[in-house]
Amino acid sequence: MNCEVVAVGTELLLGQIIDTNSSWIGEQLALAGIDSYYQTKVGDNLERIVASLQQAVDRSDAVIVCGGLGPTHDDITRNAIATVMGVELRRDDDVVAHIKQMFIKRGRHMPESNLSQADVPVGAQVMDVKPGTAPGLICPISAKSTGSGSGSAAGGQQKVLYAVPGVPWEMRKMISECVMPDLQRRAGHRQMIRSRTLRTWGFSESDLAERLDHEIRHLDSTGEATIAFLASGIEGLKLRITAKTDDDSNVNEIFESVEQRIRAVIGDAVFGIDDDTMESVVLEMMRSRGLTLGLAESVTGGLIAARLTAVAGASDVLRGAVVPYDRAVKTGVLGSPEVAAVSEEMALAMAAGVCRVLGTDVGLATTGAAGPQSHEGAEPGTVWIGLHFNDPAGESESESSRSSRSSGVSEAIEVRFTNMDRNTVRQLGVITALNLLRTRLMAAATR
Amino acid sequence: MNCEVVAVGTELLLGQIIDTNSSWIGEQLALAGIDSYYQTKVGDNLERIVASLQQAVDRSDAVIVCGGLGPTHDDITRNAIATVMGVELRRDDDVVAHIKQMFIKRGRHMPESNLSQADVPVGAQVMDVKPGTAPGLICPISAKSTGSGSGSAAGGQQKVLYAVPGVPWEMRKMISECVMPDLQRRAGHRQMIRSRTLRTWGFSESDLAERLDHEIRHLDSTGEATIAFLASGIEGLKLRITAKTDDDSNVNEIFESVEQRIRAVIGDAVFGIDDDTMESVVLEMMRSRGLTLGLAESVTGGLIAARLTAVAGASDVLRGAVVPYDRAVKTGVLGSPEVAAVSEEMALAMAAGVCRVLGTDVGLATTGAAGPQSHEGAEPGTVWIGLHFNDPAGESESESSRSSRSSGVSEAIEVRFTNMDRNTVRQLGVITALNLLRTRLMAAATR
Repeated sequence: MNCEVVAVGTELLLGQIIDTNSSWIGEQLALAGIDSYYQTKVGDNLERIVASLQQAVDRSDAVIVCGGLGPTHDDITRNAIATVMGVELRRDDDVVAHIKQMFIKRGRHMPESNLSQADVPVGAQVMDVKPGTAPGLICPISAKSTGSGSGSAAGGQQKVLYAVPGVPWEMRKMISECVMPDLQRRAGHRQMIRSRTLRTWGFSESDLAERLDHEIRHLDSTGEATIAFLASGIEGLKLRITAKTDDDSNVNEIFESVEQRIRAVIGDAVFGIDDDTMESVVLEMMRSRGLTLGLAESVTGGLIAARLTAVAGASDVLRGAVVPYDRAVKTGVLGSPEVAAVSEEMALAMAAGVCRVLGTDVGLATTGAAGPQSHEGAEPGTVWIGLHFNDPAGESESESSRSSRSSGVSEAIEVRFTNMDRNTVRQLGVITALNLLRTRLMAAATR
Repeated sequence: MNCEVVAVGTELLLGQIIDTNSSWIGEQLALAGIDSYYQTKVGDNLERIVASLQQAVDRSDAVIVCGGLGPTHDDITRNAIATVMGVELRRDDDVVAHIKQMFIKRGRHMPESNLSQADVPVGAQVMDVKPGTAPGLICPISAKSTGSGSGSAAGGQQKVLYAVPGVPWEMRKMISECVMPDLQRRAGHRQMIRSRTLRTWGFSESDLAERLDHEIRHLDSTGEATIAFLASGIEGLKLRITAKTDDDSNVNEIFESVEQRIRAVIGDAVFGIDDDTMESVVLEMMRSRGLTLGLAESVTGGLIAARLTAVAGASDVLRGAVVPYDRAVKTGVLGSPEVAAVSEEMALAMAAGVCRVLGTDVGLATTGAAGPQSHEGAEPGTVWIGLHFNDPAGESESESSRSSRSSGVSEAIEVRFTNMDRNTVRQLGVITALNLLRTRLMAAATR
C-alpha cells in the first residue's frame, strides 16, 4: 500500500506559505508503515489540479489532496475531484446544516459563499470528523482506467482519494481520526516501518558518514536496519535507524544495539533520541539534578527562554530570564560592570548576575553581535556565552562565601559564526549555549 | 517561459525536514515574472528521481532540482540527471581541486567520499558560483524528445535543468547569482508579474472575501489586477494584489488605488504591506514617536522579545525584557502584588512594573495559561495582556505625580484561545499583544 500527497494552492508555489501540511502528512504515513513516494504542489488551476490528481491516482494506491476546499472563488479542489471521478457536484443538505450550525455556535454571520463548501462530488462520502466548515471527503476512484500502482491494490480493487482542507488543525484532526484508520483498514496486514532517530550536534554530514562507515557496511551486510543522515540545519544532524518488520517485538532490541554501537563511536555528540530536543534534554537533566535556571540573553534576545518555555512544565526548572538589550539594563538590573558589551567579562558577569537576581542555581548568558552591523567593536557573528554554577555540590565552601556575590564556578566561551545572517547567528547562539550547559551537566555527572 | 521545481530527499517525504527551499525558489521565480506550475518532492530513489525529472523537462521549459548533491551514498541526483541527459558521469578535475581547497581553507580533514561531488554529467556546465563543496550544474536538455512545454520554447530550442544543493544558503546563493540571471536571459523580454501584499489581522478569509466582494468584481471587470487571500495562520491573512504588465511605470499607481479602496473598507485591520511584519510595524511606530519599550512576558516566555530582536536595529526601541516565569520573579523583580498570576491586576502590575524597572516609556505584559494544564485556576488558553504608557504626552501631570510609581495610563485585556495547543496559544498571545500596542499607538496619533 502506498499513498501520495497533493497540496493545492498558488500561494504554495509562490512561496507565500510554506507547505508544512504535506510534511506532517508524510510523517504520519511513515509512522503507519505506508510508503509515500511523491508529494506534489499545484496552483489553483483546474486543468493542472486535475492532471496532478489523475497522475497520482494512476501511480499510487491512495491519494491525499490537501487545500482548496475553502469558500472563496479560487477554491476549486472539489471541482477537480468531480472531474477525475467523472461525476457532478451536488449540494449536500447535511453539510449545509452543519455549516450553518457552526456559524450560529460562533455567533457569527455566515457569508453566502460559505455554502459552496457543501458541494460534494456524487459518490464521495463526507467524513464524520467535522472540525470546521469545510467537509473532508472520501472519494472512491475506479481502478479500471488507472495504471499499475504498487501492485498491492489487487485487480478490480478500488483506489481512494481523500480530500482535506488546508487549515492545519482541521487537516490534522481529519487525517488522524479518519484518513489514517481508513488507510490502515484498506492496507490490511502489512510490514511496519519502524525508526529511531538519534539527534546529534557537532559533526558534519560527511564526518558522521565517514566515522560510521564501518557500522553502515555492517548493517548493509546483515540487512537488519539501515542508517540515513538528515541535516536539520541549526538543529544539528539527525541519524535515522530504520527497520522493516512484520513483528514489533524485537525491533527495540535491534535499535538498542545499533544505537550503542553508534554512541561508542560519536559519544556525547548524541544529545537525544526521537522527539527529544536540545531544550527538552537540558530541562530534563536540570530537573533530575534539582537545579533551577536563570537566563540573561542579549544577542539571543529571548530565544532561549522562548524555546525552553515552549516545553510544558518548563517552570520546574526555568525561573525566568532577563533580556538586557540596552546596556543600562545590563548594569542596572544584572549589575554588570562597565566592560565591553561583547566580551568574556560581560558574559561572565551576566551569568553570575542573573543567578543572583533571580536566585537560581545556574545562570546562562549570551552577548554578541548578531549583525548586520558590528556591536561595540565586535564583528558580526561573534557570540560570547557565559555559564555560572552557583555553589556546585561537591565543593565545601563556607557559609559566608556561599552568600558572596559570585560564589560558584563560572566559564565563558567565544564562538564566531562568520558569513551568516542575523537569524542564523542568533539560532546557532541558542543551540550552542544550550549544548554548553548540557555537556557541563554530563561532565559533572561523570566526575 | 515557465520553470518547475523538483526537491529530492526521502527526509522531505517523511516530514523530517520541511521543504522551505522550494518555497523560496518559487518566490524568486514569481518575482522574476517566470511562471511556475508544479513543485514535486521525491525520495532518494534513482528510478523515481529520473521519472520526476523526465516529467518536469517534458512539461516545463526549465527545471530546478534541489538536493541530493551531497557526498553520502544516498545523494544520487547527479546520476539521475545523467540518465535523463543520456550521458555518463565524469570526474571534473577543477571541481576536485575546488573541494580540496575548501577543506584546506577550513583546516579540516577531507573524507574521501567528498570527491564523489566532483562527478559531473558529460555536457553539463559547472556553475561559477561555488559557495560550498557541492557544485551547481547547468544541464542542457535536448528538446527533441520532450512534450509541449508552454509553447514559448520555440521549436528546436533547448530546455535547461539546473541542479543546486539542498543546503539553504548554498542553494540561495546559486539561485540568485547564477540561475535567475540565466533564466532571465533565456526568457528574453516578457511580461512581469508584480504584486503588493496587504498584511491584515482580525478578519476571517470568508469575512474579507464578502466585505471586498464589490472590489473583486470591479477588478474582474477592468482586468487591471486580481486579488487573492492567503491565510498565514497566526500571522493573520495576507491579501495579495497582482498585476501583469509589460511596463512597470504605472504599476504603483494601480496598487495605490486598489490599496486605498481596500483600506476604506477594512480600515485598521491592514497593519502593513509586503515585507512588513507586526513587529517591524510596531517598532517603526514606536521609533517615529521616540518611545522606548519594555516587556514583561510570562505566558509568552520571551517570544515577543525574540520577534522584536529579530529585526536589526530593534535596540533603538526595545530596552529589554523580563520573563518572570516563576512567581517570585514577578514579585521580586517586577514588584507585582500578591494577586492571582493570571488576572487583570497581575497584567497591569507587570506592565507598569517593567516600565519602572527598565525605565521605559511603554510596558507590555502577558500572563496566562498556555496549557495543557490550567495555571492558578485559569483555564488553558486564557491570556491577559497589560499595556502601560508612562506619562503619555498630552496629559499635564505635576512633576511629583510623574515620578510616582505608576504614573501614566494602563489597560488590560483578556483573550481566550480555546481548544488550541500550547504553541498556538503562545503565538496568538504574541500577535494579539503587539496588535494591541499597534492600535493604541494609531489611536493616540489620530487623537
